[in-house]
Amino acid sequence: LSQEKLDKSRQERLYFDSYSDVTIHEEMIADHVRTNTYRMAILRNSESMRGKVVLDIGAGTGVLSMFCVQAGAKKVYAVEACSIAEQAAKIVKHNNMEEKIEVIRGTVESVDLPEKVDVIVSEWMGYALLHESMLNSVLFARDRWLRPGGVLLPNRAELYIAPVTDPVVEERLHFWYTIKGQYGIDMSCMSDFARRCMMNSDITVRTVAVEDVLSHPVRFAELDLHSVTAEELRSVRGEFRCESFGSAAVNAFCVYFTVTFPCPDKPLVLSTGPFSPETHWQQALLYLDAPVDVLQDTAVTGEVSMYPSEESARHICIRVDYTIGEQRRQSKTFSIPDWSSDAQP
Amino acid sequence: LSQEKLDKSRQERLYFDSYSDVTIHEEMIADHVRTNTYRMAILRNSESMRGKVVLDIGAGTGVLSMFCVQAGAKKVYAVEACSIAEQAAKIVKHNNMEEKIEVIRGTVESVDLPEKVDVIVSEWMGYALLHESMLNSVLFARDRWLRPGGVLLPNRAELYIAPVTDPVVEERLHFWYTIKGQYGIDMSCMSDFARRCMMNSDITVRTVAVEDVLSHPVRFAELDLHSVTAEELRSVRGEFRCESFGSAAVNAFCVYFTVTFPCPDKPLVLSTGPFSPETHWQQALLYLDAPVDVLQDTAVTGEVSMYPSEESARHICIRVDYTIGEQRRQSKTFSIPDWSSDAQP
Repeated sequence: LSQEKLDKSRQERLYFDSYSDVTIHEEMIADHVRTNTYRMAILRNSESMRGKVVLDIGAGTGVLSMFCVQAGAKKVYAVEACSIAEQAAKIVKHNNMEEKIEVIRGTVESVDLPEKVDVIVSEWMGYALLHESMLNSVLFARDRWLRPGGVLLPNRAELYIAPVTDPVVEERLHFWYTIKGQYGIDMSCMSDFARRCMMNSDITVRTVAVEDVLSHPVRFAELDLHSVTAEELRSVRGEFRCESFGSAAVNAFCVYFTVTFPCPDKPLVLSTGPFSPETHWQQALLYLDAPVDVLQDTAVTGEVSMYPSEESARHICIRVDYTIGEQRRQSKTFSIPDWSSDAQP
Repeated sequence: LSQEKLDKSRQERLYFDSYSDVTIHEEMIADHVRTNTYRMAILRNSESMRGKVVLDIGAGTGVLSMFCVQAGAKKVYAVEACSIAEQAAKIVKHNNMEEKIEVIRGTVESVDLPEKVDVIVSEWMGYALLHESMLNSVLFARDRWLRPGGVLLPNRAELYIAPVTDPVVEERLHFWYTIKGQYGIDMSCMSDFARRCMMNSDITVRTVAVEDVLSHPVRFAELDLHSVTAEELRSVRGEFRCESFGSAAVNAFCVYFTVTFPCPDKPLVLSTGPFSPETHWQQALLYLDAPVDVLQDTAVTGEVSMYPSEESARHICIRVDYTIGEQRRQSKTFSIPDWSSDAQP
């Protein structure tokens, strides 16, 4: 055994990172919930699209731009900073849409469009909504390029929280109790160390099973994309109060988001919550330092703050101040580890 | 879409790295093939162990050291450089073995033992055997601390290669042809880009299915751990020649290893090949730039060289010079990406 050896996480990276240029786009498009909801939202907005000018921010392979042409857009500016823009241009040409879609390689902050736009479409959401998101770029473009009364797709985002129990943690802690039966060595004392390792302050991206959600999720923040400012995004916060469904051990909070598209009949919602079909965003899990037992109707109250980390504006921190039942108020701040400065294990 | 968004690989990291301190050890011990083979090898060597002094290099949680005590060792020096050594000391105490096992935190190069040892046991193997392995440390300890005629567990390592076909690649290339049916957009031209991304020169760690191995694997190198030198490890090479089982498209080579434990009756082999039960080492996949069709008995010949990368001595490079059938000789050099210097996508 040696920590010099690659661990599971690095093993996963070995598999996936060699593919990453294409994998990221494959994953986005293969996320049918995401891609279909965007497509339906765009097609249902064909009245706003027909004969209009659209800006697609972070266009990637250009799939949303092409949906806009399918919906009748006259012109789409597909802005993409990364080299995938070259592929987007090829795909656009392959679909005979090069008259209507102009792929522009660059950031939306630096790009100079020949006209204002009627619609902005963008898939800007990151993990826990704001982690590494492009929302600031969307707001910049809204203020700079969107015609007054123009349409934003999506135009609203909401953040939710719920207490959860994570059976994976219990299972993994239990693992250390199974060694004795197999190898005659009692390793049960490793479960303390395992708990400390697992219940750390990293935001963990995972799928939470419906049955592990211990209360109705509570919306703690809402962003109206027509009015929210970059300044307001520097501190997104809200309170929550919920009651537990039954007896269980709370060992984490789960945070997720929805975004809403305006549509003529009724709004279309893309939910990334545990009660909706799975998306690649999954849910953000925030582990408590230790599990807290709750009974039916135990109150779980608190406040959530989301703000950019001091080291990197693209990295999100989530602070949760919470009270579970009769416990005293606790506070824990979570962040997504910064892999770029990650030392080798 | 935006490359700023976390891709699949980073998502995996989010899941796994928050757990990494404990996950690495959990994974090692949960790898039953590995743990049981070591345990059997140690117990079957109880004649060499009974009343003897053992050195465990990279002891981790100390599990191999405890197996040695189970086999009758008088004294085990469990050398571990990482902080997991603290946990090892606790587990040893918990099992009342603290009289027999001395956990020493440090590198084996720096440690000063009070005596020479009769046995060295170590689980030093990395991906593709030599990637980030501790074998140099084992050789150092062998020369410095092993009594003449002492036992090495394991005492031999062998490297194998076989041409393979990877259906995952074909499936992922095909994905881009399925978009048109679903969304009315022809993205088939992305499959060229996908092929370039996937068939790169990164070593990919994966499990190769038995049915995807296209010939009998060929042993191209063998290391006798009693005699091999650090200098020899700087260039491990060998030739191979095999004939394909049938008609297929070769799109990769698969490299794996075995290690052998001397045992009184017959040697015990721990194989990480595709024809043996899966281990956490899986296999190393080396993708060709483009698939090559073979028929039954098409000759695949070549030479493999493994050597440390120039940037980092712990990082392995694998160069394969190969000829498939009537094709001209080709050459490709592979390495495992260095994550520590990895930029954000």
